[in-house]
Amino acid sequence: MAIEIQSTHLYQEIHQQPNVLQALLDHEHEHIGTLARAIQTHNVQHVMIAARGTSDNAGRYAQYLLGALNRLPVALATPSLFSIYNTPPRLQNALVLGISQSGKSPDIVGVLAEARRQGALTAALTNFDDSDLAGQADHVIDLHAGLEQSVAATKTYTAELMCIAMLGAALTGEPHLRQALHMAPQAIADALALNAPTPTHSARLAQGILRGPVAFVAQRYRYMRDCVVIGRGFNYATAFELALKLKELTYTIAEPYSSADFLHGPLALIEPGFPVIVAAPSGRMLPELREFIQILAQHEAETIVISDDPATLEAAQAPLPLPGDVPEWLSPLVAIAPGQLFAMHLAHARGFNPDQPRAIRKVTETR
Amino acid sequence: MAIEIQSTHLYQEIHQQPNVLQALLDHEHEHIGTLARAIQTHNVQHVMIAARGTSDNAGRYAQYLLGALNRLPVALATPSLFSIYNTPPRLQNALVLGISQSGKSPDIVGVLAEARRQGALTAALTNFDDSDLAGQADHVIDLHAGLEQSVAATKTYTAELMCIAMLGAALTGEPHLRQALHMAPQAIADALALNAPTPTHSARLAQGILRGPVAFVAQRYRYMRDCVVIGRGFNYATAFELALKLKELTYTIAEPYSSADFLHGPLALIEPGFPVIVAAPSGRMLPELREFIQILAQHEAETIVISDDPATLEAAQAPLPLPGDVPEWLSPLVAIAPGQLFAMHLAHARGFNPDQPRAIRKVTETR
Repeated sequence: MAIEIQSTHLYQEIHQQPNVLQALLDHEHEHIGTLARAIQTHNVQHVMIAARGTSDNAGRYAQYLLGALNRLPVALATPSLFSIYNTPPRLQNALVLGISQSGKSPDIVGVLAEARRQGALTAALTNFDDSDLAGQADHVIDLHAGLEQSVAATKTYTAELMCIAMLGAALTGEPHLRQALHMAPQAIADALALNAPTPTHSARLAQGILRGPVAFVAQRYRYMRDCVVIGRGFNYATAFELALKLKELTYTIAEPYSSADFLHGPLALIEPGFPVIVAAPSGRMLPELREFIQILAQHEAETIVISDDPATLEAAQAPLPLPGDVPEWLSPLVAIAPGQLFAMHLAHARGFNPDQPRAIRKVTETR
Repeated sequence: MAIEIQSTHLYQEIHQQPNVLQALLDHEHEHIGTLARAIQTHNVQHVMIAARGTSDNAGRYAQYLLGALNRLPVALATPSLFSIYNTPPRLQNALVLGISQSGKSPDIVGVLAEARRQGALTAALTNFDDSDLAGQADHVIDLHAGLEQSVAATKTYTAELMCIAMLGAALTGEPHLRQALHMAPQAIADALALNAPTPTHSARLAQGILRGPVAFVAQRYRYMRDCVVIGRGFNYATAFELALKLKELTYTIAEPYSSADFLHGPLALIEPGFPVIVAAPSGRMLPELREFIQILAQHEAETIVISDDPATLEAAQAPLPLPGDVPEWLSPLVAIAPGQLFAMHLAHARGFNPDQPRAIRKVTETR
């Protein structure tokens, strides 16, 4: 039975993202400010983040954001050291941050419980402020995303990024950074609109390549079995999150990489036609990624490029445009949007149910 | 032109591993003891590791080893925060450890240079004690691996793991842990012997599956285009390193995962016959991995299992045996050996040159 894409939870939740980000600006400013002051009062030396899946990808953004804006070293936790080996690291001088849509996975809750036992400062980003995770946190930031019914997370991911960006900005105390946050809702709305088919849009063929909005472009990849997704710096998180959406929704074997790590070995994979998706918004990382795209071209890879830079898009077989004038530190909130649409339309092109991927459930509880 | 496998650098370097580990026990004991005392004197609160490729996988082992034995929180560095964004994190209370066979990659050298500028304690694990990386380190541990000529790293990987294990043991001061290290050279020799064809070995078919030493088993995977490699805890590193060898040597699209992360989304990938390699040596993680292998069986995945546990091997389509009685914290030094042989024989079965994979060089310099 064919599914009307606009009627899916996934489509609707993707398009709720501008409103969710606005709700965070409207309602969580104060909680996040309180957490920022607590971080300063507690003389936090480093941050440990406990998360799984999509939320772990938000954690990757925090590694760069809190590093670049606040000079905080950030580690992603190794939950099994807490839950299975019973040898948790010493965390007295750390902020331990749990990120989880449901707030339910026992291994993530366990990291926060141990951190609290040791006297560390704890915080939770979650869509359920009465969850087990919230119960272990000194500070709870509500994602304000509303119920997320699609198994693949979209609006809770960008909500998690927004909370992290708000925290980083609050820690600097710089008004121009706080002000910049207010552009995020409109920027993600623009990114969705730029990639949406409208009655005036049409697909066309140029040099044998299908061009047009992402719903058309996705058709070209109907039989793509595997691909690599590249990002670096702030958008390392974008690569991981887009790869996860492709795995969950389209069953494509999609591996995320930093462009630097990819050159240390995995470049051997590339043969003519091998598909590589590159998240390359404007900013300090862009020259690096443009060089990388040139190396891919030498190896005759097929490139799908997400960017606001016209020359960078020009180099791609499949360009997915972003709105301009988004500062690099906020670009991951916007750059994931064309990727979410791409994964959704590819699932649709393959006849898969975007709301209910095979084999997985909304809440996964791991030890 | 057919290549005689025994005459390749790769084969020889894999089989030099017992000697390399013995050389480290014989010659680096004192340097590592000095580094351990410096860590205690400097009141190190957390560790940051800068590395790429194979050395980054050794860093993953350090996350678990120094966490479990020494309760140290360990982060993997984000080199672009240092090199491209020019916003390095504060590292005053950290040990910053660079790991690199060549000691040459500018981004890794840059992390140590900045850490030293900030007054952090720095150390390097490298095969070249006159390298740029060594020049930025307060403490240099020589890998004693001899020249590594194959592009795919093998003996320098296990040498890096051995140095980390020696450091963790030295930090505890516990004689029984130091003593246990001495079993490593023989254990890896046993793992290589267990998987090597001998004149008395022969392949056989059981229920349509090719059984026998890894050189025979690899034939079954001649046309495997992609796979997933699973490990968790101490052997999370094994999953990453084996996946990297498969990519470099055989151009298989091999993605590493922790069994817990895999359940949070990527499980959707599994269809009947999908190949999953699981590193499952005895220890506290084994029950978790046995449960995971059962889930794979429900989804009719093809499983290749590396283990010393007879019942766990029994559940696999392709069992790759390990010697018994290796403590879990040392098991990654041994568990990678059948994987190295598997990747080498699969490259050979595909007619690829194991010493010189396409597109990559021995030393990769990234910013």
